[in-house]
Amino acid sequence: MDAREIEIDSNLLQARIETLGKIGRREDNGLYRLVYTPEWAEAVDLVEGWLQQESLRTWRDAAGNLWGRLEGTEAGPVVATGSHIDTVPRGGAYDGALGVHAGLAAIRALAKTFGQPRRSIDLLVVCDEEGSRFRSDFLGSAAVAGSFAEDLGLLRDADGVSAAEAMRAAGLEPARFGEARRDDIAAWLELHIEQGGTLESEGLDAGVVHTITGHRIVRVTVEGRQDHAGTTPMDVRRDAMAGAAEMIQQAIGVAESLGRPAVCTAGWIEVRPGAANVVPGVVRFTLDMREADPLRLAELSGGVDLALGNVARRRELQVATEDLMFRRPVPLDADLQALLARHAEALGLRWRSMPSMAGHDSEVMAPRWPSGMVFVPSHDGRSHTPEEYTPIEQVLPGVRVLAAALWELAYP
Amino acid sequence: MDAREIEIDSNLLQARIETLGKIGRREDNGLYRLVYTPEWAEAVDLVEGWLQQESLRTWRDAAGNLWGRLEGTEAGPVVATGSHIDTVPRGGAYDGALGVHAGLAAIRALAKTFGQPRRSIDLLVVCDEEGSRFRSDFLGSAAVAGSFAEDLGLLRDADGVSAAEAMRAAGLEPARFGEARRDDIAAWLELHIEQGGTLESEGLDAGVVHTITGHRIVRVTVEGRQDHAGTTPMDVRRDAMAGAAEMIQQAIGVAESLGRPAVCTAGWIEVRPGAANVVPGVVRFTLDMREADPLRLAELSGGVDLALGNVARRRELQVATEDLMFRRPVPLDADLQALLARHAEALGLRWRSMPSMAGHDSEVMAPRWPSGMVFVPSHDGRSHTPEEYTPIEQVLPGVRVLAAALWELAYP
Repeated sequence: MDAREIEIDSNLLQARIETLGKIGRREDNGLYRLVYTPEWAEAVDLVEGWLQQESLRTWRDAAGNLWGRLEGTEAGPVVATGSHIDTVPRGGAYDGALGVHAGLAAIRALAKTFGQPRRSIDLLVVCDEEGSRFRSDFLGSAAVAGSFAEDLGLLRDADGVSAAEAMRAAGLEPARFGEARRDDIAAWLELHIEQGGTLESEGLDAGVVHTITGHRIVRVTVEGRQDHAGTTPMDVRRDAMAGAAEMIQQAIGVAESLGRPAVCTAGWIEVRPGAANVVPGVVRFTLDMREADPLRLAELSGGVDLALGNVARRRELQVATEDLMFRRPVPLDADLQALLARHAEALGLRWRSMPSMAGHDSEVMAPRWPSGMVFVPSHDGRSHTPEEYTPIEQVLPGVRVLAAALWELAYP
Repeated sequence: MDAREIEIDSNLLQARIETLGKIGRREDNGLYRLVYTPEWAEAVDLVEGWLQQESLRTWRDAAGNLWGRLEGTEAGPVVATGSHIDTVPRGGAYDGALGVHAGLAAIRALAKTFGQPRRSIDLLVVCDEEGSRFRSDFLGSAAVAGSFAEDLGLLRDADGVSAAEAMRAAGLEPARFGEARRDDIAAWLELHIEQGGTLESEGLDAGVVHTITGHRIVRVTVEGRQDHAGTTPMDVRRDAMAGAAEMIQQAIGVAESLGRPAVCTAGWIEVRPGAANVVPGVVRFTLDMREADPLRLAELSGGVDLALGNVARRRELQVATEDLMFRRPVPLDADLQALLARHAEALGLRWRSMPSMAGHDSEVMAPRWPSGMVFVPSHDGRSHTPEEYTPIEQVLPGVRVLAAALWELAYP
């Protein structure tokens, strides 16, 4: 098989990106396709129609994921691909959706060029990856992997609606959620936008992901003593903000000195009482730390904890950290990495091996079955915004790699 | 005259502190006596009754200040004392009110001991110093000094009521505001709690204020670029929070290295968009800088500006500062300082010369006529809280100094 023979209909792909990119669009130009909402359901219905146009057999699972199958000649484990169709609030048309478009375009091309595969190829349209409505990250893929551990009755959206209630409103029965689990997936491949600017800045066509980053988020509470901002000399203050500023600077410094891909972000901060002329008594802030290598993640995390304690001791402050998230780095399957790399080479692409510094459905799939990811460039590294964009000519190379890899897994 | 002969009725003084300390008290135990409110009016009525009990002739001026006069034998300029009766929201019984109590106790004692003075002694009960309702700091004393420059129709409280409307509701005519100006004050003396812990920690009875601090408040806006907290490497970020944290640390460092009494406080901060997993695009924070010496204030202020610019340049951020307040240091009258100091010595007090690091009515009075201030200790340095407190035995020495100084200015 010469992967260059696989013909992707780029006009159709572009048209479908644009059509789906209108579903859930609001006046601020952003997409709002939060799981189990009417906009989300409209998008799933639209895509199901496309799957049926391509002669895939479709069904919805108990979690609300949409599946479409290109039937193989043999029974047994299937090859699966896809990504998620939900968006963050005010999201864009590429994050998640492009993996659905790419999978469908690849399956369409394989069927047209090579006919029926030996193994069935399943396209998975994940219902909820962002978790924006219920803080239920990876709900859809975790349902498939059988690893969803939250109580659907307790997860609630901003209006107090539980995930279980929302499922019922969308025609799903939460008690049957566990039935979404699959045990017959031989391999999982996902195409996604990079969401960063590395591929674009390095002039590359594609990335083959080796690891999905480890990720720790802590909420730090610094307690000092509220005082008058004029009459309390600096040398007797226990200024929570003075401490927090040093802590943030040092935490960021730990990531800066570790170097790529380590990152540390203080994205949220709150000061009490919050008046210009009062020395703050309490400051709370978050630190989001990520690193793909487990040892370096431990170094980043430990270095930050050490800095927090040192600053607190020196300034006579109390500091407490509450872990909001901890995910260890998830390595992707080495054989699938080699497979994707081989086809990228065969296609004459400029590509690199790289970590994913954002979370993806693939990190939930990887512990259950061999999983691989292909990145395509993100223009200006933007994502989670209506401006996220990848020109079609930068989408196609990744789709070709995906199609070639699906061929190798499903046809011979 | 031997100041030790002046007998202050400490039981009456204590009782009046407690009685006035109940007016405007809410369930949170704090006092809410914002200018022109019913609670404020109740407090002014109560104090006017006390003034009349002490045979002072009372009147209200056009701004709503209450005056009481111990008539002198001669016409001509008067000696005035007092402080403000309004409180911050959830304030205490000492900030401001103690200067009214002290002035009344001193005048009462002088009249009882020495009879009628040569010069009239006026007690001023300032209607609004905190400015908590209308952001109208020093409204009452500025009316007396003739320096109030705001438009009463434009100043509005949180409910949208203008100061002019509030005055009318309190029975005052805003068009006549200018009539509150006095041109016949020979000297002004004010007793106030220190609002800091210096006197208490040094075991002193009183402070004689040499300068009321200079004061600059700026709102700093740091603009960087909003980015994904995972996929944007540290070395290409323009993280507004990373910059703000360094700026705050360095600004505080400038004050720390200048040493007492320089202070710098970052009391308020806001980050946009404010999500744990998004690199902040914009951070805003305030810096409150104070220093009593004009050259050192310039050094503090300039050092901070320099640090902001340096951090912004290095991190490729935009920084803008908006000045919310600038007040130059106000030196108090040297002769009155010497007078107060002489009587503190004569009374055998442990006292010191010190700056005031908070603002006071005296800074508005000082440009118009010789003005002096006496500080008494604040327990734990607390103020602007229901917990502010000075035990009566730490109030009395300051009242005796005030009485002796009033005697010297008004009697011989």
